[in-house]
Amino acid sequence: MAGDGTPSGPIDPLSALQAEAEIRRVIARYCRAVDRMDEELLRSCYHDDAHDEHGSFSGTVDEYVAWVWRLLGRYEMTMHLVANQLVELESARSARVETYGTAVHRASSDEPRLNLVTGFRFVDRFERRQDWRILRRVAVTEWSVHVPAGAWWPVPESLRHGRRDRSDPAYWL
Amino acid sequence: MAGDGTPSGPIDPLSALQAEAEIRRVIARYCRAVDRMDEELLRSCYHDDAHDEHGSFSGTVDEYVAWVWRLLGRYEMTMHLVANQLVELESARSARVETYGTAVHRASSDEPRLNLVTGFRFVDRFERRQDWRILRRVAVTEWSVHVPAGAWWPVPESLRHGRRDRSDPAYWL
Amino acid sequence: MAGDGTPSGPIDPLSALQAEAEIRRVIARYCRAVDRMDEELLRSCYHDDAHDEHGSFSGTVDEYVAWVWRLLGRYEMTMHLVANQLVELESARSARVETYGTAVHRASSDEPRLNLVTGFRFVDRFERRQDWRILRRVAVTEWSVHVPAGAWWPVPESLRHGRRDRSDPAYWL
Repeated sequence: MAGDGTPSGPIDPLSALQAEAEIRRVIARYCRAVDRMDEELLRSCYHDDAHDEHGSFSGTVDEYVAWVWRLLGRYEMTMHLVANQLVELESARSARVETYGTAVHRASSDEPRLNLVTGFRFVDRFERRQDWRILRRVAVTEWSVHVPAGAWWPVPESLRHGRRDRSDPAYWL
Repeated sequence: MAGDGTPSGPIDPLSALQAEAEIRRVIARYCRAVDRMDEELLRSCYHDDAHDEHGSFSGTVDEYVAWVWRLLGRYEMTMHLVANQLVELESARSARVETYGTAVHRASSDEPRLNLVTGFRFVDRFERRQDWRILRRVAVTEWSVHVPAGAWWPVPESLRHGRRDRSDPAYWL
Repeated sequence: MAGDGTPSGPIDPLSALQAEAEIRRVIARYCRAVDRMDEELLRSCYHDDAHDEHGSFSGTVDEYVAWVWRLLGRYEMTMHLVANQLVELESARSARVETYGTAVHRASSDEPRLNLVTGFRFVDRFERRQDWRILRRVAVTEWSVHVPAGAWWPVPESLRHGRRDRSDPAYWL
């Protein structure tokens, strides 16, 4: 990596904190992208040559986006809640990142496999080029719990609901 | 904003990280305030002229505090767990902040609407005056799951429970 | 603490951010250690003279590790998801830290007390010596929900599962 202007040696404290903050931001943007179905935002979380192994899927980022979009279409709502993240910087350009999370999936039908709460971990290799993005992802499934039809409490129409497009408050407030 | 001594232009890296940390701290204090029923702490998360749209409620911060206190009285325990946060700094004084979370509500009665786990997002406009506080909040409800009476596992009396006052360990450890 | 070279007075902004990041890292490592059953990693989260009050247990870190290892053996999977953390630095060497979280426990048997989702808080006193570690922990149990046998959705064998040793992707990706 000599000659490209980015130091690959030890990283100074401020740069390390910035790297960690930028990596967290990518993960948060990933969740917003999936839950709001913002394909452009999703794409921007990965390098063009990234690889994603995600449940039964394994392939390039373009293949992943196409696959996950088909899946998302089956639900009326998803919510990807991120918990602990452990960022291990290996240099100013490369990091190993483990992220714990829970994904809530609700469909308009009662079909059990479409109404699940799932515990997952994203184990990622991040690389910094123009910016920090995912280069390789392995998704691990820890557990899944079925939400029976009668357990979803109906959210009153009078409350503000999330939207799966840019009319969601996340885009305009 | 000229003349008040706070730069409103581009923000330097260290100040950006500090702003983000302070904003996260306000959200964490908000959760502690609600779950421990600490009214003074809750009030300190908002500017005096803040506006909150929260489920069926919409009004000033004073009205919000009065409203949420009546609600909290119906439960014997609430827990507001915060997940992903996406802080978008617009200047050294203003930020858009999206926070994902889960709220667990348990009442002493079996009434279904008082025993719910709810997925929410806080979409906030933060402003920095003396310090960073919420200026405007829109709460979005994503899903809600009813916890049936028999599903709450009784936490043994011998274990340490949370308290809704300053006798909780968060205040004295 | 005079003479040991570590300032105990007011902490500068960059050092405060670093302290907070290091403390968060310890909590994330704690979760990895428990969920992957990595005893060496767990031990490294505590000072040698640390004290842990954890549910029905109260004792030294050595006693705690022995106790929790017996407990972990009863499950086939645990997942400790961390939410809000409030770090209150008291000096460059001491911090009060409250961490919200959810722990998911699943056993191979249907025994109700071994299939629980539990909301907890860790209220910790951290101290910095060579590095930041837990000096005293009080674990608070907020709620617990039983997952009935039929509610665990079987995670297909074809998906990647977490492991309780160093063959987990967190160690090699």
